[in-house]
Amino acid sequence: MTTPKSKYEVFREQTKIILYGTNTFWGRMFDLVLLGLILLSVILVMLDTVEGINNKYHSQLLICEWIITVFFSIEYILRIIAIQKPLRYVFSFYGIIDLLAILPMYMSIFFPATNILTIVRILRFLRLFKILHIPQISHQSFQLKEALQASKEKILVFIYFVIISAVIIGALMYVVEGRESGFTSIPVGIYWAIVTLTTVGYGDISPATPLGQFLASLVMIMGYGIIAVPTGIVTAEFAKSSLRSNAVSTKNTCKKCNAQVHFDSAKYCHECGTELQKT
Amino acid sequence: MTTPKSKYEVFREQTKIILYGTNTFWGRMFDLVLLGLILLSVILVMLDTVEGINNKYHSQLLICEWIITVFFSIEYILRIIAIQKPLRYVFSFYGIIDLLAILPMYMSIFFPATNILTIVRILRFLRLFKILHIPQISHQSFQLKEALQASKEKILVFIYFVIISAVIIGALMYVVEGRESGFTSIPVGIYWAIVTLTTVGYGDISPATPLGQFLASLVMIMGYGIIAVPTGIVTAEFAKSSLRSNAVSTKNTCKKCNAQVHFDSAKYCHECGTELQKT
Amino acid sequence: MTTPKSKYEVFREQTKIILYGTNTFWGRMFDLVLLGLILLSVILVMLDTVEGINNKYHSQLLICEWIITVFFSIEYILRIIAIQKPLRYVFSFYGIIDLLAILPMYMSIFFPATNILTIVRILRFLRLFKILHIPQISHQSFQLKEALQASKEKILVFIYFVIISAVIIGALMYVVEGRESGFTSIPVGIYWAIVTLTTVGYGDISPATPLGQFLASLVMIMGYGIIAVPTGIVTAEFAKSSLRSNAVSTKNTCKKCNAQVHFDSAKYCHECGTELQKT
Amino acid sequence: MTTPKSKYEVFREQTKIILYGTNTFWGRMFDLVLLGLILLSVILVMLDTVEGINNKYHSQLLICEWIITVFFSIEYILRIIAIQKPLRYVFSFYGIIDLLAILPMYMSIFFPATNILTIVRILRFLRLFKILHIPQISHQSFQLKEALQASKEKILVFIYFVIISAVIIGALMYVVEGRESGFTSIPVGIYWAIVTLTTVGYGDISPATPLGQFLASLVMIMGYGIIAVPTGIVTAEFAKSSLRSNAVSTKNTCKKCNAQVHFDSAKYCHECGTELQKT
Repeated sequence: MTTPKSKYEVFREQTKIILYGTNTFWGRMFDLVLLGLILLSVILVMLDTVEGINNKYHSQLLICEWIITVFFSIEYILRIIAIQKPLRYVFSFYGIIDLLAILPMYMSIFFPATNILTIVRILRFLRLFKILHIPQISHQSFQLKEALQASKEKILVFIYFVIISAVIIGALMYVVEGRESGFTSIPVGIYWAIVTLTTVGYGDISPATPLGQFLASLVMIMGYGIIAVPTGIVTAEFAKSSLRSNAVSTKNTCKKCNAQVHFDSAKYCHECGTELQKT
Repeated sequence: MTTPKSKYEVFREQTKIILYGTNTFWGRMFDLVLLGLILLSVILVMLDTVEGINNKYHSQLLICEWIITVFFSIEYILRIIAIQKPLRYVFSFYGIIDLLAILPMYMSIFFPATNILTIVRILRFLRLFKILHIPQISHQSFQLKEALQASKEKILVFIYFVIISAVIIGALMYVVEGRESGFTSIPVGIYWAIVTLTTVGYGDISPATPLGQFLASLVMIMGYGIIAVPTGIVTAEFAKSSLRSNAVSTKNTCKKCNAQVHFDSAKYCHECGTELQKT
Repeated sequence: MTTPKSKYEVFREQTKIILYGTNTFWGRMFDLVLLGLILLSVILVMLDTVEGINNKYHSQLLICEWIITVFFSIEYILRIIAIQKPLRYVFSFYGIIDLLAILPMYMSIFFPATNILTIVRILRFLRLFKILHIPQISHQSFQLKEALQASKEKILVFIYFVIISAVIIGALMYVVEGRESGFTSIPVGIYWAIVTLTTVGYGDISPATPLGQFLASLVMIMGYGIIAVPTGIVTAEFAKSSLRSNAVSTKNTCKKCNAQVHFDSAKYCHECGTELQKT
Repeated sequence: MTTPKSKYEVFREQTKIILYGTNTFWGRMFDLVLLGLILLSVILVMLDTVEGINNKYHSQLLICEWIITVFFSIEYILRIIAIQKPLRYVFSFYGIIDLLAILPMYMSIFFPATNILTIVRILRFLRLFKILHIPQISHQSFQLKEALQASKEKILVFIYFVIISAVIIGALMYVVEGRESGFTSIPVGIYWAIVTLTTVGYGDISPATPLGQFLASLVMIMGYGIIAVPTGIVTAEFAKSSLRSNAVSTKNTCKKCNAQVHFDSAKYCHECGTELQKT
């Protein structure tokens, strides 16, 4: 009944299994080679910016880059051909990254400096966990993502207050310290305030007058409390989500006494001894 | 029966709706324009302190500043006129900020440098959430505020001990390192101690002698434990408040005594012993 | 029956009330004056190390210091006389601090530079909370102390591992970077490792070779996880102690159904509705 | 019946008790001497790298090092002789460290600079807690280890994202800032990104252009949230493990099925439903 598949269809199917699948030997093989090439390509771009290496091996590096780019281009085209709904892939997160990974190289023919943008290929590496397929890791990733998602709004509110504080502090330090100490303008003062509040503290700009140092000390002690806030937010979310997902849960409500909190592994209610019915 | 409103009264009412309200189209519009002007004004003040820009565009920037200031002044007067109890507004938090936002510009006629103080206009931005009116955000702000409120006293006690430690450490390092390494006086030593304990670490002053570096190492390791304290305090409060809003909830309001906060698992009201009806 | 008190005894009693007590008007007054003098004295010592001030006002500052020292000495002697068990006071924590607060000044007659040690007077300030007597604050202090006490051992173990890591890292960086980058010896390398692991990062010594920068990056990323540990320890203790002391407790075990966890304010058991008997 | 032990066997047994045991007087004594020698040896290696000391005392230090090395060598051989299964010791964690502690010194006969590697002797110090044998400490170590173990995967996922971010940020800053500000290549840019994200902030490389400073500010504020993540992970694990060892305890071992971990409040075993007998 089923019409025999054309050669092209068989080729498309095979390609799809290799490019998108991770279960077959060749599918897995391809993914590993791909990861290797991405890594190699990123390292090549990085090395090309190191002066000593650039002077000696620039042309060799460029040739390698072009070879990898051509390989990625073919892969990109095959990915479009192989899949049923090519547009969905093209506009998906990974589809856009795959395009961004080859585009800068072709652009560099016309605009010489843009080949440095090929560094975005590192984003293709986000596929790593999908490829490695370790359930442990993906569970943990999920928990991480969930906790950050839940604390997103609180952190936004917090950053909003930090920025307002930074503007005020920056302007104050600009007035107090002035150009001699490196506070050449209010934006620079704000930059200093952020460097200080986040406890990064480069020291490229630092207060030199007694009053400036006194104010800076206040800002730092304030920064103490401030750095505690995002940590507190994220930690509370983690604690909540890990309590929820581990050890103790409220899924096995006892049918007899309605006690709700039990160990996930509990078989009998710890309140009345009735057997629990898992749901 | 009701006396027809005078033109002035209608004007006052309309003004009030536009200035204070956020529900009508014009009220919302006005708020957005206001936020835009505040932002613009703050950016203008900041740019005016950048040397390159100041030299070229100082007079243009100044004119813009004056236009915005006049607008803010009219708005301030209208706010006083429109409201029933003008004094309450004048001495409220936002009232004072609104005044502070226009005052420095007028002062700068007499004292040239004071126009930089117009940067306090950024504080008018604190209205943002009130205007945007996102329930999610205001709930989160409330939780943030509550957690910080609850940890206020502990953090004060903590800062008090940090300051005493900083004085002792600062004096010690002044004695050990001396003027050659930049520890020119005890206050400078204290400044260094705070820079170190908060892990900011500018490096404008750093120990140079072996003994000084050894002591600094001890201080830094001590600082490890110390930075953990405010984080611990705030986190514990967050965890508590988020646990409270979880395992403990306000869903099962008691029908008899109206007590709202119960364990999610509570069957009887813990205030009056009445059986709770789950919803 | 009671023998009339001698004049000396009355004087002793009066002195005791003023020096040790905080309930009477004069007792409180004395404490406040004392705190003021301590603060003044500490500020004087600090100012005396600032070059500009030292040159101009050294003798005036010295006279003030001596007056305060004599006052403290009299106070110290009176404290010994007034109390029943003088030895217990002398060897108590505050007794030793009180002695340390006056000793350096007398020592400075023979050893000129030692008067800087009078800065330890700041420790007398630890009495502040005892004097102010705010129950809220002392409750919080207690909680802080308890949480730190409980995490003491874990933090010791942790610091022990940090120091071993710092030694290994320091030696490694000394070998990799060498004298040119400022890693002049292994102890200096260890100093750098501690500066980096604690995220202080002065930048007085920083890796200059590519390999050194690579290793430093690894150390910093490791430091990420490491700084999380003391915070985690302290936070967990805080969370535990604040859960224990607040809101929910296990004090009011239900006599009928033995449910243990209730709100502190609960009057009826939330499991069976029986009235709770506070203990 | 038992054949009399040969002199060699008695010697082996005695040696074993002294070298491996910590209960007998001589066993304990030996351990303390060993710790002392390790510490001394590490300090000697460190001092030998300090220029001033190296010039004057190099030969003396070297002789001491050799004496300690010979002592350690004899100890190592005796440890192999004394134990029943020498291979298990040789390839155990401590066995390898013990070998590494003596090897570099012998290697330095042929390769002069390698004697610095004797610093790995510090690892022998990891035995400290085993020797001191404080149950409190070893319990805490266990909890620390367990919490870090549990958060291992989450932290790996996290570091993976941090590295990808650092690559992108580093490349971006290289493009924006360029060689003038010290961003001489993308690897250097990545190094800077890690220095900034971890809030170490040496300041050896720091942005100089307004755009660079703006981007750096964004990175730092991002770093805020980022540093919260490992702390959150570790803290949540600590909180969980300390909650588990509290509200949940191992006091009520089930008499029937030997299940050990129950809620403190459990009345019936959650494994087999048998009533628990409180102790």
